[in-house]
Amino acid sequence: MFKKIGLIAKRGEPKVKDCLETLVDFLHKRQLDIVIDSLSASLLPQMNLSIAVNVEALAARCDLIIVVGGDGTLLQAARSLAKHDVNLLGINLGHLGFLTDIYPTEMDKYLAEILDGAFIEEDRFLISAQVHRNNHCLTFCNALNDIVIYRSTISHMITFETTINGHFVNRQRADGLVVATPTGSTAYTLSAGGPLLYPSLNALLLVTICPHTLSNRPLVVDGDSCIQITIDPEQMGEAQLDGDGLLCQRLLPGDRIVIEKQHTIRLIHPQKHDHYATLRAKLDWS
Amino acid sequence: MFKKIGLIAKRGEPKVKDCLETLVDFLHKRQLDIVIDSLSASLLPQMNLSIAVNVEALAARCDLIIVVGGDGTLLQAARSLAKHDVNLLGINLGHLGFLTDIYPTEMDKYLAEILDGAFIEEDRFLISAQVHRNNHCLTFCNALNDIVIYRSTISHMITFETTINGHFVNRQRADGLVVATPTGSTAYTLSAGGPLLYPSLNALLLVTICPHTLSNRPLVVDGDSCIQITIDPEQMGEAQLDGDGLLCQRLLPGDRIVIEKQHTIRLIHPQKHDHYATLRAKLDWS
Amino acid sequence: MFKKIGLIAKRGEPKVKDCLETLVDFLHKRQLDIVIDSLSASLLPQMNLSIAVNVEALAARCDLIIVVGGDGTLLQAARSLAKHDVNLLGINLGHLGFLTDIYPTEMDKYLAEILDGAFIEEDRFLISAQVHRNNHCLTFCNALNDIVIYRSTISHMITFETTINGHFVNRQRADGLVVATPTGSTAYTLSAGGPLLYPSLNALLLVTICPHTLSNRPLVVDGDSCIQITIDPEQMGEAQLDGDGLLCQRLLPGDRIVIEKQHTIRLIHPQKHDHYATLRAKLDWS
Amino acid sequence: MFKKIGLIAKRGEPKVKDCLETLVDFLHKRQLDIVIDSLSASLLPQMNLSIAVNVEALAARCDLIIVVGGDGTLLQAARSLAKHDVNLLGINLGHLGFLTDIYPTEMDKYLAEILDGAFIEEDRFLISAQVHRNNHCLTFCNALNDIVIYRSTISHMITFETTINGHFVNRQRADGLVVATPTGSTAYTLSAGGPLLYPSLNALLLVTICPHTLSNRPLVVDGDSCIQITIDPEQMGEAQLDGDGLLCQRLLPGDRIVIEKQHTIRLIHPQKHDHYATLRAKLDWS
Repeated sequence: MFKKIGLIAKRGEPKVKDCLETLVDFLHKRQLDIVIDSLSASLLPQMNLSIAVNVEALAARCDLIIVVGGDGTLLQAARSLAKHDVNLLGINLGHLGFLTDIYPTEMDKYLAEILDGAFIEEDRFLISAQVHRNNHCLTFCNALNDIVIYRSTISHMITFETTINGHFVNRQRADGLVVATPTGSTAYTLSAGGPLLYPSLNALLLVTICPHTLSNRPLVVDGDSCIQITIDPEQMGEAQLDGDGLLCQRLLPGDRIVIEKQHTIRLIHPQKHDHYATLRAKLDWS
Repeated sequence: MFKKIGLIAKRGEPKVKDCLETLVDFLHKRQLDIVIDSLSASLLPQMNLSIAVNVEALAARCDLIIVVGGDGTLLQAARSLAKHDVNLLGINLGHLGFLTDIYPTEMDKYLAEILDGAFIEEDRFLISAQVHRNNHCLTFCNALNDIVIYRSTISHMITFETTINGHFVNRQRADGLVVATPTGSTAYTLSAGGPLLYPSLNALLLVTICPHTLSNRPLVVDGDSCIQITIDPEQMGEAQLDGDGLLCQRLLPGDRIVIEKQHTIRLIHPQKHDHYATLRAKLDWS
Repeated sequence: MFKKIGLIAKRGEPKVKDCLETLVDFLHKRQLDIVIDSLSASLLPQMNLSIAVNVEALAARCDLIIVVGGDGTLLQAARSLAKHDVNLLGINLGHLGFLTDIYPTEMDKYLAEILDGAFIEEDRFLISAQVHRNNHCLTFCNALNDIVIYRSTISHMITFETTINGHFVNRQRADGLVVATPTGSTAYTLSAGGPLLYPSLNALLLVTICPHTLSNRPLVVDGDSCIQITIDPEQMGEAQLDGDGLLCQRLLPGDRIVIEKQHTIRLIHPQKHDHYATLRAKLDWS
Repeated sequence: MFKKIGLIAKRGEPKVKDCLETLVDFLHKRQLDIVIDSLSASLLPQMNLSIAVNVEALAARCDLIIVVGGDGTLLQAARSLAKHDVNLLGINLGHLGFLTDIYPTEMDKYLAEILDGAFIEEDRFLISAQVHRNNHCLTFCNALNDIVIYRSTISHMITFETTINGHFVNRQRADGLVVATPTGSTAYTLSAGGPLLYPSLNALLLVTICPHTLSNRPLVVDGDSCIQITIDPEQMGEAQLDGDGLLCQRLLPGDRIVIEKQHTIRLIHPQKHDHYATLRAKLDWS
């Protein structure tokens, strides 16, 4: 059972303070230890909470971390905490999220259940990208949703080659390529025409953005595959690499990107959690 | 190493006889036992081959079965042999196939390699469909590519509900629904807008044909999932169930179809086999 | 201004009687001549209305025909009345329709406006299909939405060739081909991946259903084009031709289908009519 | 018949010189007046050709302008010459183009035919985009293929509203929006999932790139429509406007872009020209 609870809150969101206060009150009544991430602590100055210097320290001291914000806040927490064996629970302040499925108004009820031991655990893996240039590794980034290789300007498609586990797949001209986890299959790839992967599937999804070859189709491969993308050395101009929608590295012709499964985080859901119900609600299937 | 070789040939294909004769000569030279399926035996009356009464008997007596024809012939053999722990090798008489990747002209070279022990093994699973009506199981069929539920006439879309492992997914109006194996992801679902699944992935693919709900997307779920589709009891008119493109059962309103992973067959490929090379050739990716 | 009003009602719909009675009362108060189609007249036996023997007779005697039902009822009326220069107004009894955009509850308000001369006129053209076999014309049918050529059974795709204004376009294997009017672009082709054509555009839309060639894309051509589709003479088995979702003709190998623009009907809308508002509502764009 | 021939050549392409020389010899033999654009003249210093100071001067002095290069060279010439009533003929130095359909090896034969009066004329319209900021018009650009409004960075989709002829269509979040001519329907929109419009169709095509709303579909509207796109004033960060793939203007929140049909150019084709044959060749339909 969870005894030490960590708190991470979205910054710059007015609603977050009220929600945090209610949450701290609730946890205090259950006499649980609370540690708050140093950046979020300033929101609750009077509460005298134990403060962790950063999210890694938070992870070391807690057995459950509650993230108050939206899917974006949880994505960020997941990336920072990937190395640690950590349980994450998301309270969503705005619209229903795929990752944060508890509303503040339901918080008492579902948190009580979860702290009493009635919950669903769900493992979600992250992926990492290494950028290699001139035979050394230039950058590293990770993502819970997706790694995107993209042209930097509208004017030209980029040309790149893909291999999977050393096997040549194809050479493409396109606006970009997205490598997504099952978690990410409900995000950018969905707008780009990709399929929905069940979250626990051990698979990676490759979706090309605006492919020049019209017979191109999304690929779903084993989650333990090693994917390499090489930007064509003759390619004009820049491309860029993003992780979960954040710029990670400007890419040059000849750069080689290696994408692989990284660590796993554990999402804690209330027992009523139902992935298909979330899909129906978010995708207007009703 | 393979000692007892079974032969199954496509019927009604003039080119098959020559190919079979060459194949039998080749196998005789290597002093291997040959058993031929009774329906194919009539093509080689003078050759005095040992004959199996049916493909099940063939499977019981052989450690490698060579299928001469095309992907369709191999699909049929795979469905018949699903229960047996069998090795299948395909010689393709026409266009390059996804399953039959040896041309007659290359037969000697690649068969020699394979019989010398240099080959790639690849497991491919089949799926089965049970149709339940009025609380009893009416029909059973299986497929290596896909199970399709489809309206029988142009005039009306069908309405049906899908559950996966007991969880309600959605209620849809559409021309039909295809549940495909990774093997089948290069067949009908590809024309219907589905993604390509790597053959060894343990996953099932659900693609709706002409969905009325425009936000519908293909679903990829765990290969061990149990998928149930219930034809709406208020639904007007008939639908039908097909396995690998062959009619299996006319469906009535209220029918419930249960689809699950079934047995696995083992494909034997020459060592040069490369799934992505086949994709590039078949999908004009070059 | 409209003086003689014809009435056509959907059959087998319980709500229709009440709506018709309210409508007749409203029109009587405005002292307009009313003629009712003979099949709908039985719904209002006590009202002593003037009866037309069929919809053609109705068209000859009226300057506005009000259709009470849904898009399907209006499609049927439009096909029957295509030859006549006719004004059609749709009252929709169920969900919002693309063609029938007045709800019974708004009927008084909008009909009053329209009969006072404040309305929008919109021309919508129909298309016709002729089936030629052995050098004579076998069948003729027309459609306001679409003409569909389709395989009759699940087992086999059909093969056919298309020419436009005598120019060879392509030879395809597919489940079928839809030729749609702009009106029809919100119907079946939309589920099959087609674009939305503005209703007044002089264009025809060709969408292939589940094309075997993955680089196939929808085609939009001039509305005055002559489209010919020839079912491959080597083709196994039957196909079928449908107009607006109704079976028109079973097709045999070698059949040639000629599709062209036919007559035009005029839809009368209230002044608040806005095609994009209907799209937003029907396609969940909000 | 054409008497005064203008020449425009692609810059930086080694093959262009040989082709130009052959072309000039050919035209000299037919005793035609030749005028060359000043930038291309340096390729043929010894030939003593009459030189036009720029392409506008070229247009004023010639009744046929031959463009030697590829589709990109012809696009650029068309944009520069849009205001002038001009005939354009394209010689393609590389791959078959949609606009430049004569290979250098066929030049003599087809040019002879064309100069003898046997050719096909085809009108293609351009579109213009005006960017309005703070109630004045900031920029103007034009395009033969397409105008693209696009997010400038990977990190965020852009939000914008579209109206057509003053009617609100929708508010979208997406990577971008392409407004294409029928000519442009074989270019970027095709990679983005758009339909193929026959070149002479009087229509505009709107295709959203990676739309957040999954029920979004391409729109085809009348060619004389006025399309306005307003970048959301609350929108974070920049977007950009491109014409035929060239950056035209960085866009700020609140910018309003007005897109309308502009001038028309006339393409001259050999009589063997067949748009569908080009489609089949370029899209691998054979």
